[in-house]
Amino acid sequence: MAAQDKTINLAILGCGTVGCGVYNLVERQRDNFVKKIGCQIEIKKMLVFDPKTEPEGVDPAILTTDFQEILSDKGIDIVVELMDDAHPAKEYLLQAITVGKHVVTANKDVIAIYGEELFRAAASNNVEVKFEAAVAGGIPVIASLAKSLAGNDIEEVIGIINGTTNYILTTMAEEGLDYAEAVMEALGSGKTEIDPTEDIEGLDAAKKCAILASVAFRSWVTADDVMKVGISRITSADIHYAKEMGYVIKLLTVAKESDGEIVASVYPALIPGNHPLASVNHYHNAVYVHSDAAGEIMLYGHGSGKLSAASAVLGDVMEVAENIQKGVDSHSREFCYRKLQFKSQSEISNQFFLRLKVEDKPGVLAAVANVFGVNHVSIKQLLQKSLGSNEAELMIVTEKVREQNFRDALGVLAEMDRIRDVSNVIRVHGLK
Amino acid sequence: MAAQDKTINLAILGCGTVGCGVYNLVERQRDNFVKKIGCQIEIKKMLVFDPKTEPEGVDPAILTTDFQEILSDKGIDIVVELMDDAHPAKEYLLQAITVGKHVVTANKDVIAIYGEELFRAAASNNVEVKFEAAVAGGIPVIASLAKSLAGNDIEEVIGIINGTTNYILTTMAEEGLDYAEAVMEALGSGKTEIDPTEDIEGLDAAKKCAILASVAFRSWVTADDVMKVGISRITSADIHYAKEMGYVIKLLTVAKESDGEIVASVYPALIPGNHPLASVNHYHNAVYVHSDAAGEIMLYGHGSGKLSAASAVLGDVMEVAENIQKGVDSHSREFCYRKLQFKSQSEISNQFFLRLKVEDKPGVLAAVANVFGVNHVSIKQLLQKSLGSNEAELMIVTEKVREQNFRDALGVLAEMDRIRDVSNVIRVHGLK
Repeated sequence: MAAQDKTINLAILGCGTVGCGVYNLVERQRDNFVKKIGCQIEIKKMLVFDPKTEPEGVDPAILTTDFQEILSDKGIDIVVELMDDAHPAKEYLLQAITVGKHVVTANKDVIAIYGEELFRAAASNNVEVKFEAAVAGGIPVIASLAKSLAGNDIEEVIGIINGTTNYILTTMAEEGLDYAEAVMEALGSGKTEIDPTEDIEGLDAAKKCAILASVAFRSWVTADDVMKVGISRITSADIHYAKEMGYVIKLLTVAKESDGEIVASVYPALIPGNHPLASVNHYHNAVYVHSDAAGEIMLYGHGSGKLSAASAVLGDVMEVAENIQKGVDSHSREFCYRKLQFKSQSEISNQFFLRLKVEDKPGVLAAVANVFGVNHVSIKQLLQKSLGSNEAELMIVTEKVREQNFRDALGVLAEMDRIRDVSNVIRVHGLK
Repeated sequence: MAAQDKTINLAILGCGTVGCGVYNLVERQRDNFVKKIGCQIEIKKMLVFDPKTEPEGVDPAILTTDFQEILSDKGIDIVVELMDDAHPAKEYLLQAITVGKHVVTANKDVIAIYGEELFRAAASNNVEVKFEAAVAGGIPVIASLAKSLAGNDIEEVIGIINGTTNYILTTMAEEGLDYAEAVMEALGSGKTEIDPTEDIEGLDAAKKCAILASVAFRSWVTADDVMKVGISRITSADIHYAKEMGYVIKLLTVAKESDGEIVASVYPALIPGNHPLASVNHYHNAVYVHSDAAGEIMLYGHGSGKLSAASAVLGDVMEVAENIQKGVDSHSREFCYRKLQFKSQSEISNQFFLRLKVEDKPGVLAAVANVFGVNHVSIKQLLQKSLGSNEAELMIVTEKVREQNFRDALGVLAEMDRIRDVSNVIRVHGLK
């Protein structure tokens, strides 16, 4: 480092896996920063919450338990927020922005709930907010949507972006485990939260879906705006029969712009077995983008490797640092400059997979088909399996149908004597 | 557009598919530029080579056949070069840079041959050179390597980035066509050059490999530095037996840094059938990146859609325009700040697939195994098929071995009486 090279100073909030990962990466890349971005990067402070915490390998002299010390340090250019939960992360970020510091965060909660507020404050204070690490770890999904594809109208963004549920569904499919066994195996893998409710119920994915939708359509979407269905009702029978019909089941995030309205949902879905998303297995993540010019693009990788979020954070930090070094004025524009409405779920058209237990007698299929016909639901694929004892299972994949029409047909079917059980209903994503 | 919004003016050189695509995309995004990047974008001139050319939908008033008119127009901020071949594209780019215009190019020849010269001139003149569209169309591979993964040491970049050869190999595998039939089918698809020699011999892929290697390792690599093997010797028998052994055959670009030296090669290779790259079929492109922090990432998509290169060009243009608008000084650093040597091919370790015609008699296998053993080549997989008439085919996949050792063993085998023919030798890429 030559004497005249400028140094950009960071404060890191949080000393967990990602915080220490960023610290280590900064050490590892120390000799490259000036060559790559024209300035040096130093970590000046690291906020810990317990004064007894001494993260391994971190210089103890930079540790502090006092956020105000970071806030009032005019030498700190970028605050890197790597804490859990929305609070006090959001308050810290707002305070940092207000005193003119740029911020980089890996916190999906903060962006999915308070993104609009943070970006508005950043615009007033002429600083940047970056959040690549909030979705899909080191896979560059935010930069690709916001920058590389900026010349496109983005039509749909489909994600497999929750590792735990993807691991559960993968082991159910590969090892024939039932749901409870697969959950136990995920818990034993050491990569799953001790309480995986957020993952299983689709809450984690919904936050990431909100962020992807906001960036893709430039209209704020919060986690609450996202329709959520978890995976706890998926059985090994669903996976087995889906496979026989040419599909795999994945927990998808679907963010779509249709007629100027946004659809943002998380649900388990059947997808064609030969689609690239179908081979995204275990803890891998992928984001599939349909846009008007670039066509279909998939970004795939480890969503949760030890350093993958740290990689995304450092990429953001280097971009902000380079801009500071070049003397760039941050813009004061709205990141999300549109205000789109949400499409009502009942207006959305989808394909459905339906698994029924029926009397194994002639005429049952005709009766089911008749109910569908009356409700304008077309059947695309059908598979019948005798279970013995005069009982059969009937698996149906419909063509695209308004959800409301399908629900109407389902209501009638559920009342029919010859139908013993509606075992499951799962959406089908008819990916091209 | 408000009265005070700045306008960034472009000149487009070339009016082929990409040139007209960029023109159309700029029209389509007209209402979004100010909101997305804070300034308007206008196409002020378009260079055509034949004065009679009137590209459909393009305002004839902007057409010119005189590059000097563009060069001397101080109102033009960015020159967008979308011509074929290295010349006169390189000369035009250098002239534009010298008069202080930023440049965006989709021209792989120029970057793969003259990248260093262009970037040096750009650094002296404080302007930017962008080239996302030169590799893999609208898939953001350059931005991801150069920016999003900037905090990583990149270890290896593997690409399937030539559509024609991938289409040929895919149809051979899927339809059981032999090589000549598959080439005819590719020619009939309308997406293949009338003379596909550049594709088939790996020259097109080599240029893209050179660009990927330069960006990944920040050390200039030219197309001439890349070892090239084409696909014309791949037979349907190779593909068939590879599949039986669990592999598919793809034309790979492999750019790797190993012990501070670069390996840059293009060759057909067997890859494991369950690897994400194995399902990159037909005209799709993919780039697989191994790096120290983000782990493994794959970027996948259409490499050659009608507007996909235009999407990449416009993404670059918008980034440069935003920087101009913000008053950013372009840096004067070397883009490739390292100067790495190349590893000699014979020093490289690889796995190999070998197909032999042998006498169908006891003892032949032992003799082959002995030759391998003496030359320190370990056998990983073996498949023997009787052909009748005392002849058999022997397919061998080796463990990793120095290329020189393998070549030595092969020399001995070729001389053995009981070996009637060395039908083919293909590398195996042991992707994780």
